[in-house]
Amino acid sequence: MRTLTFQRVTFTMGLPLLKRAIQDQVEKTRNFVSRSLVIGEVLSMADMATGVKCGIIYWLFGGAIRSLGGPAHVTQWLQPLQEQKYTGMFAMTERGHGSNVRVIQTEATFDFSAQEFVIDTPCKNAEKMYIGNAMYGNYAAVFAQLIINGRSQGPHCFIVPVRDENGSLYPGVTVVDMMHKEGLHGVDNGILRFDSVRIPRENLLDKFGSVGPDGQYHSPIKDKSARFNAMLAALTPSRLAVTFQAMGSMKLGLTIAIRYSHSRRQFGPKAREEVKIIEHQTQTLRLMPHLATALALTFASRYAGTLLDEDIFRGKELVDSRPLQALVAGLKAYSTWENVSCLQDCRECTGGMVVVRELLAQYTKQCEERPVSSLLRNWVESGSDRLRTSFLAFNMDTVGHLTFLLKAVHFRERILQRGLVARIYYKVMTEKEDFFSAWNSCLHHITCLSLAHIHRVTLEQFCLAVRNCPDQEDQDLLKQFCLLYGTKLVFQERAWYLEHKYLTPMTSMRIRRQLLHLCNSVKDDALRVISAFNISHASLHAPIAGFANPNAAWVLYPAPQHSLAGERARSPRPKLGAKL
Amino acid sequence: MRTLTFQRVTFTMGLPLLKRAIQDQVEKTRNFVSRSLVIGEVLSMADMATGVKCGIIYWLFGGAIRSLGGPAHVTQWLQPLQEQKYTGMFAMTERGHGSNVRVIQTEATFDFSAQEFVIDTPCKNAEKMYIGNAMYGNYAAVFAQLIINGRSQGPHCFIVPVRDENGSLYPGVTVVDMMHKEGLHGVDNGILRFDSVRIPRENLLDKFGSVGPDGQYHSPIKDKSARFNAMLAALTPSRLAVTFQAMGSMKLGLTIAIRYSHSRRQFGPKAREEVKIIEHQTQTLRLMPHLATALALTFASRYAGTLLDEDIFRGKELVDSRPLQALVAGLKAYSTWENVSCLQDCRECTGGMVVVRELLAQYTKQCEERPVSSLLRNWVESGSDRLRTSFLAFNMDTVGHLTFLLKAVHFRERILQRGLVARIYYKVMTEKEDFFSAWNSCLHHITCLSLAHIHRVTLEQFCLAVRNCPDQEDQDLLKQFCLLYGTKLVFQERAWYLEHKYLTPMTSMRIRRQLLHLCNSVKDDALRVISAFNISHASLHAPIAGFANPNAAWVLYPAPQHSLAGERARSPRPKLGAKL
Repeated sequence: MRTLTFQRVTFTMGLPLLKRAIQDQVEKTRNFVSRSLVIGEVLSMADMATGVKCGIIYWLFGGAIRSLGGPAHVTQWLQPLQEQKYTGMFAMTERGHGSNVRVIQTEATFDFSAQEFVIDTPCKNAEKMYIGNAMYGNYAAVFAQLIINGRSQGPHCFIVPVRDENGSLYPGVTVVDMMHKEGLHGVDNGILRFDSVRIPRENLLDKFGSVGPDGQYHSPIKDKSARFNAMLAALTPSRLAVTFQAMGSMKLGLTIAIRYSHSRRQFGPKAREEVKIIEHQTQTLRLMPHLATALALTFASRYAGTLLDEDIFRGKELVDSRPLQALVAGLKAYSTWENVSCLQDCRECTGGMVVVRELLAQYTKQCEERPVSSLLRNWVESGSDRLRTSFLAFNMDTVGHLTFLLKAVHFRERILQRGLVARIYYKVMTEKEDFFSAWNSCLHHITCLSLAHIHRVTLEQFCLAVRNCPDQEDQDLLKQFCLLYGTKLVFQERAWYLEHKYLTPMTSMRIRRQLLHLCNSVKDDALRVISAFNISHASLHAPIAGFANPNAAWVLYPAPQHSLAGERARSPRPKLGAKL
Repeated sequence: MRTLTFQRVTFTMGLPLLKRAIQDQVEKTRNFVSRSLVIGEVLSMADMATGVKCGIIYWLFGGAIRSLGGPAHVTQWLQPLQEQKYTGMFAMTERGHGSNVRVIQTEATFDFSAQEFVIDTPCKNAEKMYIGNAMYGNYAAVFAQLIINGRSQGPHCFIVPVRDENGSLYPGVTVVDMMHKEGLHGVDNGILRFDSVRIPRENLLDKFGSVGPDGQYHSPIKDKSARFNAMLAALTPSRLAVTFQAMGSMKLGLTIAIRYSHSRRQFGPKAREEVKIIEHQTQTLRLMPHLATALALTFASRYAGTLLDEDIFRGKELVDSRPLQALVAGLKAYSTWENVSCLQDCRECTGGMVVVRELLAQYTKQCEERPVSSLLRNWVESGSDRLRTSFLAFNMDTVGHLTFLLKAVHFRERILQRGLVARIYYKVMTEKEDFFSAWNSCLHHITCLSLAHIHRVTLEQFCLAVRNCPDQEDQDLLKQFCLLYGTKLVFQERAWYLEHKYLTPMTSMRIRRQLLHLCNSVKDDALRVISAFNISHASLHAPIAGFANPNAAWVLYPAPQHSLAGERARSPRPKLGAKL
């Protein structure tokens, strides 16, 4: 699997589209982030292992150079990457620190006389762990404490040669194979140890901190902690790439599960033909909200991509866009959770026949990172952001209308935010608790707030997409799913709304009925939406969706007839096609 | 993996304990069901693939013979199974029908002149699919429509020889390897096709229907549909075995995740040692309710096992114990859902380091089966059952007391049940809807009711276990977890309680605070509980839980110190040990 995946990566990275994308990254061509993100989404649909490995080489390793290096680094390292002269890896996580990376223990000590850095792993907890492409890559972007004259300037990123072009390890580098990655065997993970590995002074990616020939440290940011925040912020685009991968696998899973549900028959009235399982109330109730969520995520994450492109094009440092960072971190957590839940439902709705474990495999480390909460801290303090689109207004103001749903999610976010600020203020200022324990005792509140924030932005972006849809028929279709998405958000949190008397018991029950009704009413249009995802049949190879799979010739199910009929009756391909 | 697993199965089935368990099944020794269930739980902890294969041979194949065959069948087939003369498989599911098995299409036509049945697969949809042990087994318990003189008497079960002792297939039998079972590679699944395979008349398991030498069909149950219900009911013990397997993997995952959380440190107050991650509010909030659920499931499923043993010992047909069937079917769905959710949280809480995909693999086909709803139909109609233990009474009646929580889950079940009966009655009697569509339009309501039912029984059984605990210290410990479990149940459904004005906004918020408080207060005692699970260290081999794994020598984390200290300070092993 690893060899095959490596061949696929080589083939993929050699495609003109991919070479162009790396060139765009070198030249910082306008909108290069958005274009790359969509490529990542498509790759993850075609083959998750290939998508992950390309992501490591292109987004993580390449992204570190572009975001943390100077212009010379970009020319020196990205150009040969585009020409496939070598591949790279991203070595941040350590055995001892997977989330609290500020206190990693790998050391890069400056040796003035040699004008070199000495990269060293001082203890077991400092070993770099779960490093993707560790068994193949030639260079690693290694995060280490930069030490000059015995004093650390905090974590910085260094390019460290790991193995030569023949694959032989350089002296002082040890790599341990972490072996099987269950469900994603094509991806090699390893442990890296450095024993006094010497690298030239120039291998420090020095955008946020550099060491001169005189051994003097220079940085545009004086505070060590603020400096590290700036580095993490610069890596924001890579974080958003995960959301696009999660979206890709949701769309893949939904396409298979919905096509199957429209062809498989089971149970029915006595002595009559069995009904399609999409007719079972529980089936639509499980699948349709996920489809609506996949659409909402599509619009919200593309919006975030646009904002990133804008900032980068204007030369603005991403650390100054805290709300955008909070959005991207929140989208990463939200989209991967939704992805897991969506694919699990797809599996259960197809009797376990959607083989998606490989799609799930990589989305488990999000929780430990807690980027949301640490970013949120600043965002809560800042109070306002440019992500608000409060100008949205739709016709009427009852539960069945978007305005009602939008107002509800707005209200929830605002109250949660206000409450959190008040609680922390009270604990710290009045009760004199230390900040960490005050923060920790509010973690549940914080999680709720960050999700509420993402829910609000996502629903708004969905509404905007509906409003800006140029085609009447498409707009009607999208609007139904947007209503469904908003209804789902309010339904999920109806307990909170009831507690805060925003909903009465009566309206709450109406929300439930509305959810059931909408799920039922969009189930046929769902075929049009998944067809608009434009997933190549070559990528689907799922027998239960009606596509042959040469590796499982024994099983082929009929394609959903309604799909073809429906497509023919209307436009041959929904106009939405280019958009989803 | 398959070869290794087969060797493990052979070894396991040869253990005196297992041989004794099969002998008990032959002799229908008192309480043999309960004892076997616990063996299944332990096996699934030791190695899931071995547990699954033993389950197929022992519970599914062996169980079919014991439950559906006459005394002669038991002697003829179970005795050599105990001596490992051969192994078997269970062939019910077909390509076309995985859940609605009543209308399977495999045929068993009686040939009067030869006194044989002719087993035939008339079409692609009739192929037996996902059959475990298909690549190794010698005999299959095949469900097929019993046809005499061109007329079907409904599905019956037949023993069909598949391959001889050397592993060569018999003529007329085709087996297709379904290849990789991602995450559970040790288990072989296959497709079976029969082309006019002839078997002796005696190979029909004839407890519920037999064919005499004269070609006459006899059955103690006249109605074809009722007859099939009786057969499915007889297989109830096998269904409960799945719950015990799910419990086993929950306990395994929780042991690893909780031990890790008590040793791993991450984040903390500035310039101080990082705190153990169990101190993070979100960590306890995710793990502690699952631990309470694992305990609740332990008591509830053992209770169900006891009821089964009682019925079987008294010679009562299980089809007459509808509430018990509903309980077992409900427990199967509930426990496997909880298992998936628990293990996913364990994964996320350990940064993806709990390798549990193999534990998840088999729990995905529950949904399509819908045994709950079909059983519930009768149960709703019957209105009452012997599972009520309304005599329970605890001291006080506020949200912090068990009585309050018990009353709440009772109330919810009663209201949902009443409402469902009224809705269906209205749709069918007044609106003249056909029963299927009336039922289908209430499916969401039905799912809620069946879960509410299981919640109530499970909480009651937990309360009983607390009351009957002989040791004061253990009782206090269990009571805290029981409170936590009840609080979790009410918290999850607080929207419903608010809608029905059973909770006020104020009490609802109090429930939330109580949940957070309880999760925090039991987190140290959690180490005592998992130690009482008595999982062999040889079964754990999880480096992050502090146990070495020879296959991953590169990673070893320290064991939680508190555990050892705590154990020493109190009793060397919790007295609960023998019970959980």
